[in-house]
Amino acid sequence: MFTNEITKRLKIDYPIIQAPMAGGITTAKLVAAVSNNGALGMIGAGYLSPAQLREQIREVKELTSNAFGVNLFVPSEFKMVDEEIEKANNILNTFRSQLQIDKEPSILPSAEKTFQAYEEQIQVILEEKVPICSFTFGVPSIEIISQLKERGIILIGTATTVVEAQAVENLGMDAVVVQGSEAGGHRGNFISLHEDSLIGLMSLIPQVSDHVSISVIAAGGIMDGRGLSASLKLGAKAVQMGTAFLTCVESGAHAVHKEAILNAKDEDTMLTNAFSGKWARGISNKFTIEMQKYNSDIPNFPVQNTLTQSIRKASAAQNNKEYMSLWSGQSPTLARNETVEELINRVIVEANINY
Amino acid sequence: MFTNEITKRLKIDYPIIQAPMAGGITTAKLVAAVSNNGALGMIGAGYLSPAQLREQIREVKELTSNAFGVNLFVPSEFKMVDEEIEKANNILNTFRSQLQIDKEPSILPSAEKTFQAYEEQIQVILEEKVPICSFTFGVPSIEIISQLKERGIILIGTATTVVEAQAVENLGMDAVVVQGSEAGGHRGNFISLHEDSLIGLMSLIPQVSDHVSISVIAAGGIMDGRGLSASLKLGAKAVQMGTAFLTCVESGAHAVHKEAILNAKDEDTMLTNAFSGKWARGISNKFTIEMQKYNSDIPNFPVQNTLTQSIRKASAAQNNKEYMSLWSGQSPTLARNETVEELINRVIVEANINY
Repeated sequence: MFTNEITKRLKIDYPIIQAPMAGGITTAKLVAAVSNNGALGMIGAGYLSPAQLREQIREVKELTSNAFGVNLFVPSEFKMVDEEIEKANNILNTFRSQLQIDKEPSILPSAEKTFQAYEEQIQVILEEKVPICSFTFGVPSIEIISQLKERGIILIGTATTVVEAQAVENLGMDAVVVQGSEAGGHRGNFISLHEDSLIGLMSLIPQVSDHVSISVIAAGGIMDGRGLSASLKLGAKAVQMGTAFLTCVESGAHAVHKEAILNAKDEDTMLTNAFSGKWARGISNKFTIEMQKYNSDIPNFPVQNTLTQSIRKASAAQNNKEYMSLWSGQSPTLARNETVEELINRVIVEANINY
Repeated sequence: MFTNEITKRLKIDYPIIQAPMAGGITTAKLVAAVSNNGALGMIGAGYLSPAQLREQIREVKELTSNAFGVNLFVPSEFKMVDEEIEKANNILNTFRSQLQIDKEPSILPSAEKTFQAYEEQIQVILEEKVPICSFTFGVPSIEIISQLKERGIILIGTATTVVEAQAVENLGMDAVVVQGSEAGGHRGNFISLHEDSLIGLMSLIPQVSDHVSISVIAAGGIMDGRGLSASLKLGAKAVQMGTAFLTCVESGAHAVHKEAILNAKDEDTMLTNAFSGKWARGISNKFTIEMQKYNSDIPNFPVQNTLTQSIRKASAAQNNKEYMSLWSGQSPTLARNETVEELINRVIVEANINY
């Protein structure tokens, strides 16, 4: 009952995509387990160097012969303003001292290097013949799109509003992930403003479906068969699930992160720009709450991300959830600690129930 | 296929409730048309005096013999701080002069009178034997609940989070409307904080359904058969639709309000506390955008509502959408100008399609 054009093109049994969660969550083990169980595993490559990406792709290939994909962050120009960075460091030093670390990062990102790494990631994808590639934080250039399409790579964009979904379609991409306001992790808006782009899936899926003809993939708060069935009823052809896979046994997420989600209530998430300079949803903690008052003083992505790196690392090393990014969608009470196989089978069984 | 416990108790053919929209939208004509077409019409009585409420109930009874309901605002204590009101009036005078009106309101609301009017509204409901009564902005007292239940009146609460839905259930109410972040008009949070209570329906419906055993009614961005089917799949037993009925021929909404919704894009709504002192979602306009910078200086509901009354009235009289409250959910592109009969029939036909 779940086969449609996009599942056929992606060569998957079920219309389920594991969200590409960057930062060590989507290990080869997780990605391969998803692909081996009839859904689509995705490497979240946003923070991987080209060499790391190549290595991870090869690891996945060793663990599965099924289709899988890679997600890239599309870089944007960003400014490095010394005063801004000094101000941000002064704010962050309070947290650094609470964690008993004293390093301000010595190497800061450069726009030039970021763009270069992205171009090299694209080369890795071409060379390794990755069958599916998705993009967040923007859309790739026409040149990159044609390079990838020439090799038969299926391309998926990410949108938070109708106008962004139309931009993805107009570039000739094959499908669009529509990210509802429920979604955990970074917001994918790239044309619409942050405050305008927080649209719930009940509104977003049918409105986008009415305005594009490519396949719509729903993302945000979907955790079980109810979410899958509802998304299909609203007009989506598949779903992308992040938090549900994050708490799985095979995920590389820190144990403290998994526990935080498994113990959270529906109203425990919030949007914060304090970790990376881009807005993202996660379980609130000391860092996100105390940083709220500075949200207009935060350097752009990826500068702030580099500045908070030692804080996040130390917090994780100390098993202290208060300074880590605890990304989660708005449905944490639906999360379980189970294997990928158990999760996928459960979702499909639940979605087949006739209510 | 749509009959269930709650449709039987509400004595309706379809699991569709017309949202009680206060402020002249839910005229007797609209409410009766909804009830005459198999769904549940609701009078939004929040701003009606007890006498006006009685009159409107009698008008509805003349137009339909089917079940209908009334929604009340549960009052809370509020402060009247002279300096705050002066400050707010100073801000609002800019808008008053743009509309060429110069009246600051001479009579301000008092908490005592607000509570008294609410008690009288309850008496009207009892005397007029209204079969269904719903509540927003809080929950009624145990005394009021038992008074209403003794007469067999079915009681519906409004919640924005699991904890609020549990509070509604624990008081012995019969059903709970769960208001997603997509919803237009005023937010119904009464235990959870505003910023914590903006949960999308894809997350809210299943999480509440797992935590209460009373019927869940989904509200927010639901406009057609896709939204109805999806809500039922997520665990709701019925839906409450506001914006979809607001643009109907029979609705009492101002023509400028209807037009603003029919012309809006998905990303054109915003949350504002500037009209009433309570957060609410509507199409953004000059007033909501310019008032954003003052959002922490705004007197509590219903004080600010009284202060902005002449502005909203003058704007409407001048057919100027820039200073009116243009309440709308996040799905304005799904709105149509059709009759109530056409809307309800279309929703049911669409919901029966097997995707």
